[in-house]
Amino acid sequence: MSNVVSLKGGEPEKPNGLEILRRRVDDGMDRVNAVILDKMQSDVVLIPQLASHIIAAGGKRLRPMLTLAAADLCGYEGERHIHLAACVEFIHTATLLHDDVVDESDLRRGNATANAVFGNQASVLVGDFLFSRAFELMVADGSLEVLAILSRASAIIAEGEVMQLITTNDTETTEDAYLDVISSKTAALFAAACRVGGVVAEAPKPQVEALDAYGRNLGIAFQLVDDALDYSSRNAQLGKSVGDDFKEGKITLPVVLAFRRGSEDERRFWRRCLEDLDQRDGDLEVAQELMGRHTAIDDTIERARHYGAKARDALELFPDSELKTALNDAVQFTIERAY
Amino acid sequence: MSNVVSLKGGEPEKPNGLEILRRRVDDGMDRVNAVILDKMQSDVVLIPQLASHIIAAGGKRLRPMLTLAAADLCGYEGERHIHLAACVEFIHTATLLHDDVVDESDLRRGNATANAVFGNQASVLVGDFLFSRAFELMVADGSLEVLAILSRASAIIAEGEVMQLITTNDTETTEDAYLDVISSKTAALFAAACRVGGVVAEAPKPQVEALDAYGRNLGIAFQLVDDALDYSSRNAQLGKSVGDDFKEGKITLPVVLAFRRGSEDERRFWRRCLEDLDQRDGDLEVAQELMGRHTAIDDTIERARHYGAKARDALELFPDSELKTALNDAVQFTIERAY
Repeated sequence: MSNVVSLKGGEPEKPNGLEILRRRVDDGMDRVNAVILDKMQSDVVLIPQLASHIIAAGGKRLRPMLTLAAADLCGYEGERHIHLAACVEFIHTATLLHDDVVDESDLRRGNATANAVFGNQASVLVGDFLFSRAFELMVADGSLEVLAILSRASAIIAEGEVMQLITTNDTETTEDAYLDVISSKTAALFAAACRVGGVVAEAPKPQVEALDAYGRNLGIAFQLVDDALDYSSRNAQLGKSVGDDFKEGKITLPVVLAFRRGSEDERRFWRRCLEDLDQRDGDLEVAQELMGRHTAIDDTIERARHYGAKARDALELFPDSELKTALNDAVQFTIERAY
Repeated sequence: MSNVVSLKGGEPEKPNGLEILRRRVDDGMDRVNAVILDKMQSDVVLIPQLASHIIAAGGKRLRPMLTLAAADLCGYEGERHIHLAACVEFIHTATLLHDDVVDESDLRRGNATANAVFGNQASVLVGDFLFSRAFELMVADGSLEVLAILSRASAIIAEGEVMQLITTNDTETTEDAYLDVISSKTAALFAAACRVGGVVAEAPKPQVEALDAYGRNLGIAFQLVDDALDYSSRNAQLGKSVGDDFKEGKITLPVVLAFRRGSEDERRFWRRCLEDLDQRDGDLEVAQELMGRHTAIDDTIERARHYGAKARDALELFPDSELKTALNDAVQFTIERAY
């Protein structure tokens, strides 16, 4: 836990685990961003307008960073990972655009969503454009293996999103069903982003598999923490909204745990709020109180730690290096940002 | 005009141009349909449920038929065109699903749309799934050239859909702007479907280009006639709805022509109905009357004839054959179905 950075006021801020990784791939990310800006252009000006709205909105660019870092960790010295990292971000961005339409979200990372500004119709279509453009970029790269990885991941993401749609409002959802959803909708692209880095480096199979496992487990940990943060006052400090999942009736692990551990009265509360979407003033606070009572948030983070440990262990077969430490610290940060 | 089939009662129905083409590729289409059914499967049962709703809804399967016919015309005797024709249909189906969400349509080909039955959210996500699945199928085929053709076409379709969104409700749209929209949203996939058939057959470049030109011009003619039919009582006979474009304020060529040729009073009518979407009982009938007064429907079909002639001339460098005649007759039918 020596890498945990205090975010409390007063102390000078040391770079957190993710920041160290970011600095390490900084040059590459500048070029990735240039490719992203270049390839989202179109004579149809609404496309770059809307795309830049979401792409400039200040996401962490975590997935393309992973592609660069994975290639780097395998000693890659070429240029292909730059364009492929941009592909990964385009696929992610297309997914976000469609997600926000599906969720009817108005805010993402504290900013108005593209669908709120430009309308659902444009968001659906520009998502399709970015997705197609990602495939054009991959085709230009010319590797059928990379195309196979990312087209498979894209299909799995869509399956995960549909699964999530089905479990929404269903308080009987099991922890395993929830894990299936986040493994597909989130972890599949993390895994693919890392795997592609190993593949362009022509790394030996065990290394490629290790990178895939690192990404997959990091992705699960990342989503678990995100879902915990949606009920945590920590999110307000990070400039994110709290209670979005609650409002939409999404069934995430904190809910699964609180529902199962709760009394019959409590379960009636969860059903009213999340199945019937009959929500009243103060309900979110009650939900947070119930989660506290049943340590649902803490245990969600505890589950995330489990996947974080698996991610770090997956990397163990790589020789020690500054970059390996940075990748491990990024896992740590992903989890500790919850505090 | 000898191929024009009377659809009036009394006479025995001779097969129309499209029907002759369909019979010609019948065996192949059975296998394409089997691939479509197989590849739309998923453990997430809502996906095949929704996909089969739209795929079984009885579309003409015109695009995959074109891939088969194009390969056949170039003497292809392999199997690759079967899977690639299924890809083309998946891309088309994904586009339809997203289109119906964007247009907020309730009916397609006289049936309830997927979004009306399953909701917009599922339609967006299953569209994404089918699109990803199409790319997986292409990757399994293994041709980067085919991947380049269909990923490019997909990006162009998305651009066309965004252009259409922008021109919707804009009565000042020019004929050329309208042509840009339909060239992208419709003709690009017709062209790609035909081109892919030539590419798998390893046909010489002039033949591949001829097939592309045939598909592109046929696609434009097809869309022009579709847009004319939306204002024509002929559509009611075909079991299709009339006036959908009018209700949505879509600016198609019949509108462009009637608006430009109309008096200032008439333009005020078009602006009220299509820009302000302030529509009253009887407005559709007035619109049809104005189109009749300015021969806007007939002239739209006349424009379609121009592109149909280009499509047929593109095929002229192929030696005469039964299949070539069927492809020419399909163009004829595409246009003459307006009557």
